[in-house]
Amino acid sequence: MAASPDREYVDRRAPWRVSLGNVIFNNDTRAGQLFDLALTLLIFASVFAVMLESVSGLRRSYGVMLRDLEWLFTIVFTVEYTLRLVTARRALHYSRSFFGVVDLLSILPGFIALLFPGTQAFTVVRALRLLRVFRILRLGRYLQEASVITEALRASSAKITVFLATVLTLVLIIGALMYVVEGPENGYTSIPTSMYWAIVTITTVGYGDIAPSTPLGKFLASLTMILGYGILAVPTGIVTVSLARAGRPTRFVTCERCGEERHDTDARYCKTCGERLPAAPQA
Amino acid sequence: MAASPDREYVDRRAPWRVSLGNVIFNNDTRAGQLFDLALTLLIFASVFAVMLESVSGLRRSYGVMLRDLEWLFTIVFTVEYTLRLVTARRALHYSRSFFGVVDLLSILPGFIALLFPGTQAFTVVRALRLLRVFRILRLGRYLQEASVITEALRASSAKITVFLATVLTLVLIIGALMYVVEGPENGYTSIPTSMYWAIVTITTVGYGDIAPSTPLGKFLASLTMILGYGILAVPTGIVTVSLARAGRPTRFVTCERCGEERHDTDARYCKTCGERLPAAPQA
Amino acid sequence: MAASPDREYVDRRAPWRVSLGNVIFNNDTRAGQLFDLALTLLIFASVFAVMLESVSGLRRSYGVMLRDLEWLFTIVFTVEYTLRLVTARRALHYSRSFFGVVDLLSILPGFIALLFPGTQAFTVVRALRLLRVFRILRLGRYLQEASVITEALRASSAKITVFLATVLTLVLIIGALMYVVEGPENGYTSIPTSMYWAIVTITTVGYGDIAPSTPLGKFLASLTMILGYGILAVPTGIVTVSLARAGRPTRFVTCERCGEERHDTDARYCKTCGERLPAAPQA
Amino acid sequence: MAASPDREYVDRRAPWRVSLGNVIFNNDTRAGQLFDLALTLLIFASVFAVMLESVSGLRRSYGVMLRDLEWLFTIVFTVEYTLRLVTARRALHYSRSFFGVVDLLSILPGFIALLFPGTQAFTVVRALRLLRVFRILRLGRYLQEASVITEALRASSAKITVFLATVLTLVLIIGALMYVVEGPENGYTSIPTSMYWAIVTITTVGYGDIAPSTPLGKFLASLTMILGYGILAVPTGIVTVSLARAGRPTRFVTCERCGEERHDTDARYCKTCGERLPAAPQA
Repeated sequence: MAASPDREYVDRRAPWRVSLGNVIFNNDTRAGQLFDLALTLLIFASVFAVMLESVSGLRRSYGVMLRDLEWLFTIVFTVEYTLRLVTARRALHYSRSFFGVVDLLSILPGFIALLFPGTQAFTVVRALRLLRVFRILRLGRYLQEASVITEALRASSAKITVFLATVLTLVLIIGALMYVVEGPENGYTSIPTSMYWAIVTITTVGYGDIAPSTPLGKFLASLTMILGYGILAVPTGIVTVSLARAGRPTRFVTCERCGEERHDTDARYCKTCGERLPAAPQA
Repeated sequence: MAASPDREYVDRRAPWRVSLGNVIFNNDTRAGQLFDLALTLLIFASVFAVMLESVSGLRRSYGVMLRDLEWLFTIVFTVEYTLRLVTARRALHYSRSFFGVVDLLSILPGFIALLFPGTQAFTVVRALRLLRVFRILRLGRYLQEASVITEALRASSAKITVFLATVLTLVLIIGALMYVVEGPENGYTSIPTSMYWAIVTITTVGYGDIAPSTPLGKFLASLTMILGYGILAVPTGIVTVSLARAGRPTRFVTCERCGEERHDTDARYCKTCGERLPAAPQA
Repeated sequence: MAASPDREYVDRRAPWRVSLGNVIFNNDTRAGQLFDLALTLLIFASVFAVMLESVSGLRRSYGVMLRDLEWLFTIVFTVEYTLRLVTARRALHYSRSFFGVVDLLSILPGFIALLFPGTQAFTVVRALRLLRVFRILRLGRYLQEASVITEALRASSAKITVFLATVLTLVLIIGALMYVVEGPENGYTSIPTSMYWAIVTITTVGYGDIAPSTPLGKFLASLTMILGYGILAVPTGIVTVSLARAGRPTRFVTCERCGEERHDTDARYCKTCGERLPAAPQA
Repeated sequence: MAASPDREYVDRRAPWRVSLGNVIFNNDTRAGQLFDLALTLLIFASVFAVMLESVSGLRRSYGVMLRDLEWLFTIVFTVEYTLRLVTARRALHYSRSFFGVVDLLSILPGFIALLFPGTQAFTVVRALRLLRVFRILRLGRYLQEASVITEALRASSAKITVFLATVLTLVLIIGALMYVVEGPENGYTSIPTSMYWAIVTITTVGYGDIAPSTPLGKFLASLTMILGYGILAVPTGIVTVSLARAGRPTRFVTCERCGEERHDTDARYCKTCGERLPAAPQA
């Protein structure tokens, strides 16, 4: 790859901003790792507080304490966000990045919830804080593993789109059929409701809040289930094949004597004719 | 491949029919793409209207408007169908093709529903309109992806038939067994109903509208579930293997001597006639 | 393979027994195919009659007719079984074979049910008649496909046994845990009942007839579900890998020049060095 | 591999301890196999007794008998544990091994339950006895198969961790959303309860004890199910690929020059040192 433009960017930050930025943004120093650990614990604690506050029994008993904690988390995360803005090599770049937006989202609802205490809806937005947990997953080998999965899913996105379009068409047809066969008196009150039932059935979730009552309805439902059974196999097959390709550890190098091209990554001699293989490039 | 007979067919359409036909049937011009887009939006809108009309609250409030929309969609789709018939290179060929039939099916029920307003059953047939959405999926790479999936499913159709026959036999045996063990007093009112339960269980849908009550029934149900567990793996395996083969990394290069076109990616000589294959481009 | 002992067996049947036996046992003549078709229709009809008789409404209306049909099927299948015994090349060999036992099982319950009309339990045994349907599946390519699946399942039977033993141990542990945590007052009336719930949960069937009520129970149930989620992947993986191996269409033949050993089944020249491959044996 | 220190350990046990130890710890003699069989039957019987005692009807009728059996099992297992300690080549090593701990765990709760009869909770700990069943699975080929599965799961543990972290984040976000959309009046009484619902839905278990009631809730639930549908494919893909690699048809043959032991089945030369490998036996 060519040198990234980042490398050529002249760093004009004061020395203290550079040092602090290293602690906050990197984790290759002991201070950086401690910072990351403390941040992770804080993130988990703040998410946990949001969860606890939603339990009515606990809200009644510990409501004041949880409110105080909410203040604390909002203040700490605000300080952290400010420091990130100040010490980032390019503040604007950071503030527009995925994690920059997530970091901002994780403090805004705190302020709003504290100012307008009745707005329960912000509970959800506060849950966005958990996205920050991915900061941790970025470390070490986890990111690499995630990239294999992501790469496999991306490689099969066209197949998955076709598959989803087919499933949704089936859901519409089956939903409309069941609406006519079973009718509102058996719980299939409208086509959207019947489609909800069809999705519940095809995905094999099967709540049972709506279930067919008439013999014909049960017959159609049985067909739907067996169909869903076969359909379920398709995305699994797509993802499996993609994963198998994404992570295959083969070294493609042509043996100069016999032409064998697929070798194990640790092979030093051709397995077919015994010729020494060219050395692998230093990765 | 030999030249298709289509190529030799002499086009006797008037120029305006050729131009209009290009807009309607192809999407390689800007006008053709706009036509497709407008058509897609109309199709989605008409399906959406059918869905909304089935919701009793909305039908009461907006029934007249939805009825007017129904008229509108039927008229527009009728005009479109007529234009397709008029501008098609071979009208008969189009009217018998898959999309020709779907296009006709999407306007017929509209007329019938408008003439006999009580026939709620046509709601279903009107849902066939969604099949028209596949017109869009035909574009670009989606059709190719769909063909890989379809090819994989077709290649494994014999295995899937054997599998389904086995599952249905199991469903019959288990259904009859549970009918005897649990009996009508626990909801297993007949063998067909018990078979419905067996399908609900083996496919792991599990509504719970019928569930075993006796200890022996629960034991048999547990065996059925574990069986279904293992059985579920078979279609997934079949489809995965088929997909892996359908999409096997094949190098498409024509052998200059014998014309064989599908070679392994590591092949250097034609497997059919032994001719050296052209070198692969450096990727 | 060595010549089978069957080939050397001297056939001492009278000519009419040989001809009739060909019609009954083989399907390579037109008469044999007609016989198989008629038999299949009879088998389906008899199974259908058993199913219909279990529906109380139909039993009340058509009970007498269904009883007469039962007589008819029993007589016809008895005649068929007798003919098979008489015309088989080796009667004892047939009567002990899988289909010989199934054929006998399909007439015995008929007699017993007719003699003791109250014994509803024989409904089940009569369902064994459907096993006769496999007679049809034996024809043509279906048997071959079934053998690929069966071979794949047999090849992985040891893995599946280990897997089932692990799952059953987990079910016992989780069942006992939930029995203690939730207790009889929430529906977990005993350890066997809790194990039934654990199987319903791990296999993702989820009837909902028993569901956790306490917070701790819901937490444990969540862990169980996520566990079952991962566990579900194991049998699928086992069967997929087995199927991929069982049906791989590779011809193992060593190229005499370069030693490449894995070739496509239709390859006539080595893909690596272009040497002509030894001709395939005539299968 | 270097010689294991075990080999050089001087055995100072008395001859009777050596003989008895062979019977107890090994199963390559007839006496050892009989001992293993008797032990297995005892283990199954003791687990069965724990299960039966939890059924209230049986406890009332056979409570005294089951209690006596409990005494019997505890005594027998205590004797067995003592013998193992006495005859083990290295008693400390055994008592700290996996099976040593399991063996101890299987007698301790018996004593405690007998001394304090009210402590129903020990029912669970007694269920740990079933872990002893794995003693049987250690025999022969089962252990080898289990190690393939275990190896496959370990190889994909990083991917599975990433996957679980993503699923749990989704569960939190979806749970919080549904808590706000549906609210306590529809059964979504708190975020933890909503998360329980989300897990029940994503894993396709679908009890139906909590189900969405509002149109928006049903729409979100439908999205969740389709998401869970696709997500379910990921662990299956991961495990399948791992299994395919773990069980890759490897030829185990030691290279005479460098000692490399794992080669491809089609390798004729050592991939590490280029030495010609011994020819494969004709299978």
